[in-house]
Amino acid sequence: MALTLEQIAQRFGGEIVGDATLQVGGLAPLDLAQPHQLAFLANPKYLSQVETTQAGAVLIAAADLDKLASRAGRTFIVTPNPYAYFARVAQLFIDLAAPKAPAGVHPGAVIDPSAQVAASAVIGPNVVIDAFVVIGEQVRIDANVTIGRGTRIDEGAHLYPNVTVYHGCKIGPRAIIHAGAVIGSDGFGFAPDFVGEGEARTGSWVKIPQVGGVTIGADVEIGANTTIDRGAMADTIIEECVKIDNLVQIGHNCKIGAYTVIAGCAGIAGSTTIGRHCMIGGAVGIAGHVTLADFVIVTAKSGVSKSLLKPGMYTSAFPAVGHAEWNKSAALMRNLDKMRERIKALETALAERGSEA
Amino acid sequence: MALTLEQIAQRFGGEIVGDATLQVGGLAPLDLAQPHQLAFLANPKYLSQVETTQAGAVLIAAADLDKLASRAGRTFIVTPNPYAYFARVAQLFIDLAAPKAPAGVHPGAVIDPSAQVAASAVIGPNVVIDAFVVIGEQVRIDANVTIGRGTRIDEGAHLYPNVTVYHGCKIGPRAIIHAGAVIGSDGFGFAPDFVGEGEARTGSWVKIPQVGGVTIGADVEIGANTTIDRGAMADTIIEECVKIDNLVQIGHNCKIGAYTVIAGCAGIAGSTTIGRHCMIGGAVGIAGHVTLADFVIVTAKSGVSKSLLKPGMYTSAFPAVGHAEWNKSAALMRNLDKMRERIKALETALAERGSEA
Amino acid sequence: MALTLEQIAQRFGGEIVGDATLQVGGLAPLDLAQPHQLAFLANPKYLSQVETTQAGAVLIAAADLDKLASRAGRTFIVTPNPYAYFARVAQLFIDLAAPKAPAGVHPGAVIDPSAQVAASAVIGPNVVIDAFVVIGEQVRIDANVTIGRGTRIDEGAHLYPNVTVYHGCKIGPRAIIHAGAVIGSDGFGFAPDFVGEGEARTGSWVKIPQVGGVTIGADVEIGANTTIDRGAMADTIIEECVKIDNLVQIGHNCKIGAYTVIAGCAGIAGSTTIGRHCMIGGAVGIAGHVTLADFVIVTAKSGVSKSLLKPGMYTSAFPAVGHAEWNKSAALMRNLDKMRERIKALETALAERGSEA
Repeated sequence: MALTLEQIAQRFGGEIVGDATLQVGGLAPLDLAQPHQLAFLANPKYLSQVETTQAGAVLIAAADLDKLASRAGRTFIVTPNPYAYFARVAQLFIDLAAPKAPAGVHPGAVIDPSAQVAASAVIGPNVVIDAFVVIGEQVRIDANVTIGRGTRIDEGAHLYPNVTVYHGCKIGPRAIIHAGAVIGSDGFGFAPDFVGEGEARTGSWVKIPQVGGVTIGADVEIGANTTIDRGAMADTIIEECVKIDNLVQIGHNCKIGAYTVIAGCAGIAGSTTIGRHCMIGGAVGIAGHVTLADFVIVTAKSGVSKSLLKPGMYTSAFPAVGHAEWNKSAALMRNLDKMRERIKALETALAERGSEA
Repeated sequence: MALTLEQIAQRFGGEIVGDATLQVGGLAPLDLAQPHQLAFLANPKYLSQVETTQAGAVLIAAADLDKLASRAGRTFIVTPNPYAYFARVAQLFIDLAAPKAPAGVHPGAVIDPSAQVAASAVIGPNVVIDAFVVIGEQVRIDANVTIGRGTRIDEGAHLYPNVTVYHGCKIGPRAIIHAGAVIGSDGFGFAPDFVGEGEARTGSWVKIPQVGGVTIGADVEIGANTTIDRGAMADTIIEECVKIDNLVQIGHNCKIGAYTVIAGCAGIAGSTTIGRHCMIGGAVGIAGHVTLADFVIVTAKSGVSKSLLKPGMYTSAFPAVGHAEWNKSAALMRNLDKMRERIKALETALAERGSEA
Repeated sequence: MALTLEQIAQRFGGEIVGDATLQVGGLAPLDLAQPHQLAFLANPKYLSQVETTQAGAVLIAAADLDKLASRAGRTFIVTPNPYAYFARVAQLFIDLAAPKAPAGVHPGAVIDPSAQVAASAVIGPNVVIDAFVVIGEQVRIDANVTIGRGTRIDEGAHLYPNVTVYHGCKIGPRAIIHAGAVIGSDGFGFAPDFVGEGEARTGSWVKIPQVGGVTIGADVEIGANTTIDRGAMADTIIEECVKIDNLVQIGHNCKIGAYTVIAGCAGIAGSTTIGRHCMIGGAVGIAGHVTLADFVIVTAKSGVSKSLLKPGMYTSAFPAVGHAEWNKSAALMRNLDKMRERIKALETALAERGSEA
């Protein structure tokens, strides 16, 4: 499997500087690449490696190409974003090499007669598709996935094994949902129906029916074992090109704006709105019913309890230090009021001395 | 599908003030409700909406009804808890409208001959039920669920797709377990069997067999992809009407008291006992072998490392602030001992001045 | 089912002091054990229970045996590590009592003709095994597990129900993977390809193909619903005898050193290396691209943002205290800079007084 640089540039753009007929069969980092491979300079600090690499050709930004001492005999594809270009070409080589699962429904799948499955879709063994589900063209549904009544999966989406999508949800075009993710489980809503106080309290929690759904936009990616709850009345909404990592929890009626990325183990409570182009770090917790503006960044392990209405970076996490050192600081922190008292006493004493003087 | 207010009140109680023959076909918020819908006043601050709503009738507490300037021509159901009443009526309309899965076992299910499945149970495709399992009346087990040897699922319980229940567990009546949850996996217990220190250390971890089970009470709800480990010797216990959100981890031999609610991403280490009517916030972590009294509230993202033996609200989380501001405070916090030294030095200096004077 | 102490000692070692022909049929704690049971003294503080226990025999360390006031008529197995010995004997009794699933492939499993499955393996219902998979001797794969193309599962491994292993992974001998775990999902990697600033920003995230795999060593245990991502280029590596609890996230290209234990709800971002014999507490978060030395301990709920290159215990978590008390300390903490200013002012004032005097 090999492509000429010309074939690659025809598909992904970029200007070839050097031999456009050169063939490459894959990609590699500058320091490991061989003559049949395409390398890339994503970070200018590795510029010197471009002069020593064995790579057949190098993806490079125009500004970096200009900094090279010598281009002698080398070939380049010049592009504003070599890293994104690399990703696209790498995906192309994978697609060319990968065995394509044949379109069609595995005989071990269980599909309700009222469901519509496009002819080009690939439905794996033991997939269970309930009534009135609509599966678009080129959709791929892997083994042991379950899809509830009336859900729609748009063209080119890929659901990995053991995913569950509840009833009444919409999965956008080209969405990728990794194994074990759950889309559309009930939001966590209960009305307290108790009388009496303390140990005399009796009654129960009454479940609030969750009759909204989940709407997931185009090009969204959702990580393994992540959970996205359905809305109580209206839908939970994940806009286009949102990228969500593994083991993330998104509560009912949240709205996550387009292009936002959410790292692993984050949790977002119900009815919270997150803007576009936000970056939510790993294990961040965000309270319910708050709003984050576009372009908000929350660093890993921070907790958000109020709306953050201006773009920018927010934090509330401490980095781990030696256990004894930490305990000393933590003890002082719990006694800050005493420290303040002592400062106050000093100020008063000094003021009195001043007036005595 | 419509019900008269009289039919609703016969089922759920409450006093009708106005036209008992009025028919409603669903529920809606005060500001959106139409004449064929029932609205509810859960929060007195929306009292003025009761006077302008288009709703056919309104669920209201007696005290709020008394505050209305005019009831002119309006109909009410008076109940002490309109929000819980709303939830119950909403569930009734869903039950009336939803297509009922027919009782019986899907031919694609795999059921051990020694298992007992009640005639009214609904067992979905690809469900796997091992030996000596007992499935009660009206139980619903969705596609791709796996149930281990000797487990008992009581009447009216609902297991969503891709749930795994290990052997020897008990799931109480009307329990709801959402997709991907795992009940009865091995507790995390290993005996260290190492000799030598530092890099000379050799040996291994020896698994402690986990021979207890999990006992889940009546009316418990467990969220998607939540995990509850089996006990080492005795059972892990979740008492009646406990509500657990998604992606929660409950360690072996925990006991969670009745009516307690646990929000998403919380983790509770082994052998911890949580009282009744507690509220555990999202992403809270609770250490092993501690006890929380009844009516303890732990706010989101807090960590509990010791027993909390008195009811009340406990916290250890900071809210995120601007990154630079946070870093400044955090740096000062790590140097609190120096600040204390400076205060001490000031006190000493001032005392010396005093004695000089 | 009963074994003589001699049979037990032949298998697991230890010196019998007393009646080697005594038969036991199980294990129990000292205070509950009956004459047909074997008890164990793991913690010297329970030494007095050894003198009163009903147990037929007691597992004990030599040093503790010497401290006993009287051994009158009692039987012991003397071993350096009674707790690990207990665990091994307990496992033996479970293995003897448990019904063995017969070797072979359930007719409801779907296995690609190119896959190799050892004759002694047990493959459950609805298991889906893709092309070129290799399943070793004595492997047990439970219901509804899915295994991707070219993955290898070594002898004696056990995959519980609903596990997903993606393509191109290696699971070592005797590894245990609990229900719902996902091994080999795509790492979270996207190249930003945007132009413009703020609301004028356009473009998208370009997925970085993840073409590495996951390599899991011998005797690893992985908890329920835990996720381990595949590497971007090279493999994510979990070395031998690592023990990972439930709901843990391990990012792409991490390397976890042998014998390290990771408690529930922890999250480790991509390209991080954790040494051997580390202990990572529950809900700990570790940033990407950092290194932890061997024998590092991180306490529960702490966050690690930089490399920790020396063995030892590290912390950054506060324990929950009363909500009002916490809020007071937290407010003071946010105003530490003002406190510092006041100290500075006092120092200046005092110095001026000094020079005046």
